[in-house]
Amino acid sequence: MERIRHLAPPALAAGAALDEPATYERNVENFIGTVRVPVGIAGPLAVHGGAARGTYYVPLATTEAALVASYSRGAQLITRAGGCTARVLDARMRRAPVFAFADLRESALAALWVRENLARLRAAAEATSRHAKLLAVETTIEGNHLYLDCAYATGEAAGQNMVTFATEALCAELLASSPVRPRSFAVESNASGDKKAAAHALMATRGRRVCADVTIPAALLEERLRVTPAMLAAYWRVGAVGAAMTGTIGMQGMYANALAAFYLATGQDVACVAESAVGITRLDVAPDGALYACVTLPNVVVATVGGGTGLPAQRAAARLLAHGEGPANADALAEIVTATALAGEISLTAALCAHEFAGAHHRFARCGAGARTGVGVPA
Amino acid sequence: MERIRHLAPPALAAGAALDEPATYERNVENFIGTVRVPVGIAGPLAVHGGAARGTYYVPLATTEAALVASYSRGAQLITRAGGCTARVLDARMRRAPVFAFADLRESALAALWVRENLARLRAAAEATSRHAKLLAVETTIEGNHLYLDCAYATGEAAGQNMVTFATEALCAELLASSPVRPRSFAVESNASGDKKAAAHALMATRGRRVCADVTIPAALLEERLRVTPAMLAAYWRVGAVGAAMTGTIGMQGMYANALAAFYLATGQDVACVAESAVGITRLDVAPDGALYACVTLPNVVVATVGGGTGLPAQRAAARLLAHGEGPANADALAEIVTATALAGEISLTAALCAHEFAGAHHRFARCGAGARTGVGVPA
Amino acid sequence: MERIRHLAPPALAAGAALDEPATYERNVENFIGTVRVPVGIAGPLAVHGGAARGTYYVPLATTEAALVASYSRGAQLITRAGGCTARVLDARMRRAPVFAFADLRESALAALWVRENLARLRAAAEATSRHAKLLAVETTIEGNHLYLDCAYATGEAAGQNMVTFATEALCAELLASSPVRPRSFAVESNASGDKKAAAHALMATRGRRVCADVTIPAALLEERLRVTPAMLAAYWRVGAVGAAMTGTIGMQGMYANALAAFYLATGQDVACVAESAVGITRLDVAPDGALYACVTLPNVVVATVGGGTGLPAQRAAARLLAHGEGPANADALAEIVTATALAGEISLTAALCAHEFAGAHHRFARCGAGARTGVGVPA
Amino acid sequence: MERIRHLAPPALAAGAALDEPATYERNVENFIGTVRVPVGIAGPLAVHGGAARGTYYVPLATTEAALVASYSRGAQLITRAGGCTARVLDARMRRAPVFAFADLRESALAALWVRENLARLRAAAEATSRHAKLLAVETTIEGNHLYLDCAYATGEAAGQNMVTFATEALCAELLASSPVRPRSFAVESNASGDKKAAAHALMATRGRRVCADVTIPAALLEERLRVTPAMLAAYWRVGAVGAAMTGTIGMQGMYANALAAFYLATGQDVACVAESAVGITRLDVAPDGALYACVTLPNVVVATVGGGTGLPAQRAAARLLAHGEGPANADALAEIVTATALAGEISLTAALCAHEFAGAHHRFARCGAGARTGVGVPA
Repeated sequence: MERIRHLAPPALAAGAALDEPATYERNVENFIGTVRVPVGIAGPLAVHGGAARGTYYVPLATTEAALVASYSRGAQLITRAGGCTARVLDARMRRAPVFAFADLRESALAALWVRENLARLRAAAEATSRHAKLLAVETTIEGNHLYLDCAYATGEAAGQNMVTFATEALCAELLASSPVRPRSFAVESNASGDKKAAAHALMATRGRRVCADVTIPAALLEERLRVTPAMLAAYWRVGAVGAAMTGTIGMQGMYANALAAFYLATGQDVACVAESAVGITRLDVAPDGALYACVTLPNVVVATVGGGTGLPAQRAAARLLAHGEGPANADALAEIVTATALAGEISLTAALCAHEFAGAHHRFARCGAGARTGVGVPA
Repeated sequence: MERIRHLAPPALAAGAALDEPATYERNVENFIGTVRVPVGIAGPLAVHGGAARGTYYVPLATTEAALVASYSRGAQLITRAGGCTARVLDARMRRAPVFAFADLRESALAALWVRENLARLRAAAEATSRHAKLLAVETTIEGNHLYLDCAYATGEAAGQNMVTFATEALCAELLASSPVRPRSFAVESNASGDKKAAAHALMATRGRRVCADVTIPAALLEERLRVTPAMLAAYWRVGAVGAAMTGTIGMQGMYANALAAFYLATGQDVACVAESAVGITRLDVAPDGALYACVTLPNVVVATVGGGTGLPAQRAAARLLAHGEGPANADALAEIVTATALAGEISLTAALCAHEFAGAHHRFARCGAGARTGVGVPA
Repeated sequence: MERIRHLAPPALAAGAALDEPATYERNVENFIGTVRVPVGIAGPLAVHGGAARGTYYVPLATTEAALVASYSRGAQLITRAGGCTARVLDARMRRAPVFAFADLRESALAALWVRENLARLRAAAEATSRHAKLLAVETTIEGNHLYLDCAYATGEAAGQNMVTFATEALCAELLASSPVRPRSFAVESNASGDKKAAAHALMATRGRRVCADVTIPAALLEERLRVTPAMLAAYWRVGAVGAAMTGTIGMQGMYANALAAFYLATGQDVACVAESAVGITRLDVAPDGALYACVTLPNVVVATVGGGTGLPAQRAAARLLAHGEGPANADALAEIVTATALAGEISLTAALCAHEFAGAHHRFARCGAGARTGVGVPA
Repeated sequence: MERIRHLAPPALAAGAALDEPATYERNVENFIGTVRVPVGIAGPLAVHGGAARGTYYVPLATTEAALVASYSRGAQLITRAGGCTARVLDARMRRAPVFAFADLRESALAALWVRENLARLRAAAEATSRHAKLLAVETTIEGNHLYLDCAYATGEAAGQNMVTFATEALCAELLASSPVRPRSFAVESNASGDKKAAAHALMATRGRRVCADVTIPAALLEERLRVTPAMLAAYWRVGAVGAAMTGTIGMQGMYANALAAFYLATGQDVACVAESAVGITRLDVAPDGALYACVTLPNVVVATVGGGTGLPAQRAAARLLAHGEGPANADALAEIVTATALAGEISLTAALCAHEFAGAHHRFARCGAGARTGVGVPA
């Protein structure tokens, strides 16, 4: 494969000035310098998304050899097959406060009050930000404790802080107005799934819920990855059982590499990998004998403003994904990273089926040679 | 608080030369440049570990404001209380191959053969590396499928690749020697928990299982964090229920920030946060009225060789944790990051109880001022 | 304690005629006789419920010695403390069909069609029964598969069959009317939690969601159960961690004994214990030093019509719970069994704390003597 | 199909005398009578087990119409295909005590002491019973708490009480001999999975771990159940995802009906369904186009002594499973109930695929006619 000449390093911002404290003062305390994480590109990756429409070269920041090469071969396969479809199905950032009352009678009354006073609570919450929109408040009673699940639209921001401020105001309004007074409360009860893997998250979106799928002709799969659709589908069944036996949340080969490398490259909060890396992969044989592959990620946390998205190199990396003027919007980022995860699932599973899993690591991790060969323009 | 003068930036390696492709050719393919992640230090953090013995300034790479400050105030509190205890309780990297047979009779025979031929399998596996030691092989039969759980000691390496090579050799030996021949196999079955959150992982160590605990006098807690031990213990009970209600794996405030920032700063594989960020936190009132706090992390994946640990800035960051000549060993890194997570759990929970959770973000995220105040030498 | 004279055996229907095939022809195929399960009564149990208001003697069918005695001592304690509160918080029986389409584009279009044609789907579903009311339909897209979560009110019936019929009609309507045609479908996709323990069930009611709580003065607890509130609360914390470490769904001492014995005595479907026996127990020290205890069960499946509820002895047992004319309604049964579970949690935990857990079994299981002593009228 | 004439009712013990208190005094307190649960038989079911070898008519006690008929048609299909294989793979009853120490240093020392003093602890535990054999003690440290997982062989008894007595003695020995003294302890910590669904249980046997599998020729499947192997395998994939999306423990159609009905008929503890009804089902197309089906149940809790196994009708029901003199032993019962669950998985899935799921209930639940037709001798 050829390498992509128009992205010769350093395509990202460089220079010693980027190590200056002033660049980072809004991002970190007690600054002592920077660590640099190399960015490779995987692609081309053709995505027919709701927001991401085009062929992308995906920046991935990692120190793990073979990672970019593996995503790249999956991306190229998808592109050769005509591209994948991707859709943001839902978007909501959540915060889950809890209120303690004297007993169940009181918590049940308070839950009723919340349901009847949503407009008042919404007004308080939304007054904290131009961007936060309160989508829903669900109540769960556990004895004398009342848990709320507050879901917000947060626009282009990831919204983790935005929903905290908004929910704090919502709580203050409840404290001021509810005829039933709680003994105590906390703005977060551990029930929102914030940077934690929780089964509930599979059903209840946090961040963006995204799905991507692709159909790959059998001949193309065999030519490129040396496996058949039936082999991948057979492995999927084994892996599904392996996941179930060990109490894994969701069902996947592994999303964490794609998510961590993409988040890091584009200035997202990489700690969110703890919650983002759950989902469902399915590899199946389509009626016409092709491979059908899909990935569903219910907790993709991406943004184009806030956090590390404004740092020079990170912004430059995100701009690689723009079509037109500015960077891709958050929906587009979410669709691209999910498509990348789909590429990885196909590539990883094929490596396992073709008994090249260890081989890939041997080849790439042990010798620098060949490290440039993973990306090319499909003929 | 005073800032730590001996760690003025840039304490880590800097300079445009660090953006050169040659530096990263063993770490990434299709290199196009680097992203820089600012590193702040949290501390001092006094640890009485099995391997980590001393007072540490912990490098944390993050773009999320307030993060370093929060860990720092937790670390200082622990240090003022005399330091925390930490112990690596177990260390094993796992790979879980699967073999498909014709039926249950055959898979049961093969399981028996495995248990009776462990020496032969061990020899094959250990021949692939000077460092890999096969600790155990467990067999699980699911119909005509036989899953093996192969656990290895991997020394100072994280060992993810090492155990793949070793297990591939183990599989080859089984294929060559077992009188019952499998129809097919894969070196990984999705049952090892590799970069995935799985309930099984809480009981079955992957990487290092580490526990850290500390007792904090009530007066010190109130003076520093404006909360009482009873408040933290009450919140813990609420959070435990919040976790259980939502099907969360483990029970925690949030480890991901500490793990991601530490892994990134010291060149670990940050994608491992997906599996590392599960564990158990407990906050309780000790018989004498003090706060008792402990954190148990069963899947800490750290190394001093391989991956990104050899990159210039990452190596410099890890050296901050050395006492004496070289960098801290992997056991020490595991104990330090767990102690850091403990500091974070106390600080985060106190912020929630004192209703300063949103406030902390407001203060640090919205204005650069004060960003230097989080770390100091305890008086 | 005295025994309850007005319930001397045989209070339930008896006689050889009850072994006749004609009695059971609607309940079982290939009838060969009956097994008899002895029923003991636990109580008195004072419940201040939404539907159950009074003091109950709860029939429990079991062959496990010490079970009735344990629930009885918990019930008496609750009654002495003034009774417990109980509330049915939600009621919905669910069925989760799945439709397979060609790809994600189609499944997303179909999901949209479902959301826009709810009235039509509701009409079809509700035409199958006078009692089924379609409360909600939620859509979940997983690649080319569309899962629906159909929730119904089913009145006094458990509704497992009713929602199957209704959902079958709903599916037929979708097949007939949707412009996007599925390739195939099934009326149940394994996502409803039918007789299976699923984390999702903790948040999504199936059957009745019920909560019960009680406050027990410390002196009363010590006098009756030889433990303090602090001891029970300390055990609860240990047990919460024990549950989390082992990937348990929910957090409980054990509900299965109460549920199985109550379901069996009153003619419910005892296989539902597989889904009903998940929930959250909390034992805490109230501000005034009393014990605060609560139980939340999100999947109580009870009925007053259908299944085994019409059999002679089962109907007689359910009538023990009537106040006034007929049997207690389904809401009342749900509140009573949850209150019984609460009694059991307190009694069981106290036995563990007082180191009488094994002792209770020794005493009751090894010798018949004393077996009558567990129930009495509180002085 | 013909009915089985040699099992005409009442094949089980009958008569008013069976309602007498004296019959049940060791099984229940506050006896007020009995409820009768009708027993139907499903079969013939040919099992090639380790302990169960023969063709069985399986007694199932239930009040749910269509249940026996469904298992019966699955059993007949298996039998026509030549029977299923079944194996008890492991047998161990567990109890999990917990000890609280001052801090992590002490709990780590105590764990070491336990590992070095197993012989002493075993002697104490085994002195409590002729039947209890301590197989293993595993230690888990969580801060200042030490959890033990004590696994025992318990012979023909379910062993729930036996392991409590033995573990109480083990704890007493630790208290008496350990140089590190715990502050407190409990004989059960909620970590044993006792009558609770826990992910850990899928890997860690409690009771008996049993696997059963069968291969069914495609033509036979189509003739009898009107479905193809490919249809069942396709449904399995959908159901696997449905289970994963909802955080279900394991992967199954539904085991609870088989387990509850079998446990009830043969005098087992039906509350154990809460833990027994987890496992893994797999339905796949074999290389030759046949259906391959297997069920793995890791927590089957059955006995031939103790509990309700000695009651007249229950003993008679268990004797139906004897070949030769006495009743089948516990291993045989475990293999038979797992084979029955396998029959149910095939029958249930076929009904869903053939869209006869609701229909089956309609037919059987709505009219008594035809209720006898489900069992016959295969032609």
